[in-house]
Amino acid sequence: MSEFDIIKRHFARHHHAPGLSLGVGDDCAVIDIPDGHQLVTCVDTLVAGRHFPLDTSAHAIGYKAVAVNLSDLAAMGAKPHSIMLAISLPWADQDWLEDFAAGIYDCCQKFGVLLIGGDTTKSPTLTISVSAIGFVPHHQAITRSGAKSGQLICLSGQVGSAAFGLSHPDSRLRQDLDYPTPQVAFGLALRGFASSMIDISDGLAQDLGHILRASQCGAVLDLDKLPLADELCDLELRQAMHYALSGGDDYQLVFSIDSDKLDKFHQKHPDLTVYVIGRTTTDKQLICQYRGEPHHINLKGFDHFGT
Amino acid sequence: MSEFDIIKRHFARHHHAPGLSLGVGDDCAVIDIPDGHQLVTCVDTLVAGRHFPLDTSAHAIGYKAVAVNLSDLAAMGAKPHSIMLAISLPWADQDWLEDFAAGIYDCCQKFGVLLIGGDTTKSPTLTISVSAIGFVPHHQAITRSGAKSGQLICLSGQVGSAAFGLSHPDSRLRQDLDYPTPQVAFGLALRGFASSMIDISDGLAQDLGHILRASQCGAVLDLDKLPLADELCDLELRQAMHYALSGGDDYQLVFSIDSDKLDKFHQKHPDLTVYVIGRTTTDKQLICQYRGEPHHINLKGFDHFGT
Repeated sequence: MSEFDIIKRHFARHHHAPGLSLGVGDDCAVIDIPDGHQLVTCVDTLVAGRHFPLDTSAHAIGYKAVAVNLSDLAAMGAKPHSIMLAISLPWADQDWLEDFAAGIYDCCQKFGVLLIGGDTTKSPTLTISVSAIGFVPHHQAITRSGAKSGQLICLSGQVGSAAFGLSHPDSRLRQDLDYPTPQVAFGLALRGFASSMIDISDGLAQDLGHILRASQCGAVLDLDKLPLADELCDLELRQAMHYALSGGDDYQLVFSIDSDKLDKFHQKHPDLTVYVIGRTTTDKQLICQYRGEPHHINLKGFDHFGT
Repeated sequence: MSEFDIIKRHFARHHHAPGLSLGVGDDCAVIDIPDGHQLVTCVDTLVAGRHFPLDTSAHAIGYKAVAVNLSDLAAMGAKPHSIMLAISLPWADQDWLEDFAAGIYDCCQKFGVLLIGGDTTKSPTLTISVSAIGFVPHHQAITRSGAKSGQLICLSGQVGSAAFGLSHPDSRLRQDLDYPTPQVAFGLALRGFASSMIDISDGLAQDLGHILRASQCGAVLDLDKLPLADELCDLELRQAMHYALSGGDDYQLVFSIDSDKLDKFHQKHPDLTVYVIGRTTTDKQLICQYRGEPHHINLKGFDHFGT
């Protein structure tokens, strides 16, 4: 089966759609941009055995490859529109490809996203690189650099579940690792409210650190306020905090927000639960406390080339 | 050295530029779209040992990874704007990364393109996936499907040089393999003139075949009209045609055009040399002839999963 047959058979569903002038099957895709909007774009790569366990189902790999990119768009407050898929495969197994494509399209469908193009190549290492495109009204993108001291630090949901699932593959939390849920609606709702935002892919501590560095401020984090799955609550504190702060693959949003804006957000979006986990400060440090007392913890995020 | 250090040290040159609201260093890049334009986007992956010889310099790999994507944009008649770089590396060798980044930025600079984002991951196989973004005025993109019978088939330049360079690494044509030149200005100039277009990455025969299938027509190709480097002219015909028709990695443009439009194109762009190599027909075949006589040739393009 040729590269072109693979594309035609598995990856060519989205030919025509609103805003899509030309989809899969030409040199490039051509897209209409809504008036008054800016383009928001990102890319994330999953390498077999590094970004997902080797026993991950083809369906979950496809789903996750899309989800992690939609999470990056969500972290900007952008509305996702489309993805491109660059996949490098050691083989052309039709059953695997069918399940993988189903996972890709299931995530696309759930979030109203189109697969508009890609590239299929052969490689000894299964590698999936998805780039995503979304839109945001002019100057409404939520960056990492807008936090100011004296604001609240908040989370969109539980942290540490995916990392626990990685260590405990028989646990129900394995689902959080394999099928992360990008917080697309949450990200959109936070436009005009959050002053800075990032999605948690490398661990809460490291990703919050990106906000603090970009915004030139510090933070106090209340460890006892972190929303955790029951499985993590049953662990001793040090172990639970390891998963919650350094685990990665959470794909929740962490953001800063003025407290009066949070009140207004609650009024406008009573369906969205916000977890207040700390506050920004003027000194450029990340300090953890537990029940109001300082608590030293060794913070380390996921780093591909780290020692 | 961490993933973030690698990005900061090697890939973070383009922070501010016209049309770029937010570049490298956040979850996503944010771009302004010129009024009246559509977004054109594509992705191409290079795998070490498959898309470039293992002895290729880091600089050439970087340059080529950008160039092949700009070639796809050129084939739509799009003006390139920016790229994102997803690189999977077996190691974090600083000298290699420095040369690779220099190649990336040299190609970007030559064509006025910005590196706006990316992802750096570890993998046993060196894999570079670049996605590119360009713009085209509304409804002016040149697709594969617009050819009509009775039009001329034309080339923007020589074919077969890169394939010859691959087989003859000591030849000066190795340069055409390592440093392909995307025909960006040529593609832009052909807007409003060419009825269909594609860039030649998999070999002239296969890529022209994509146009013919998408446009539902056939073609007669005059093999004696193909523009060839001197090195190929010195070969016996069968061998020269193997490189020219099936070789791949040419990154020239092949396009269809009405003959009166070609006259007007020559008047408007006297600096651009067009090679007329055949004509489109009503029957859905690709027929080759040499000096007016039918000439059977075994046509095969580059196909990653082909038998």
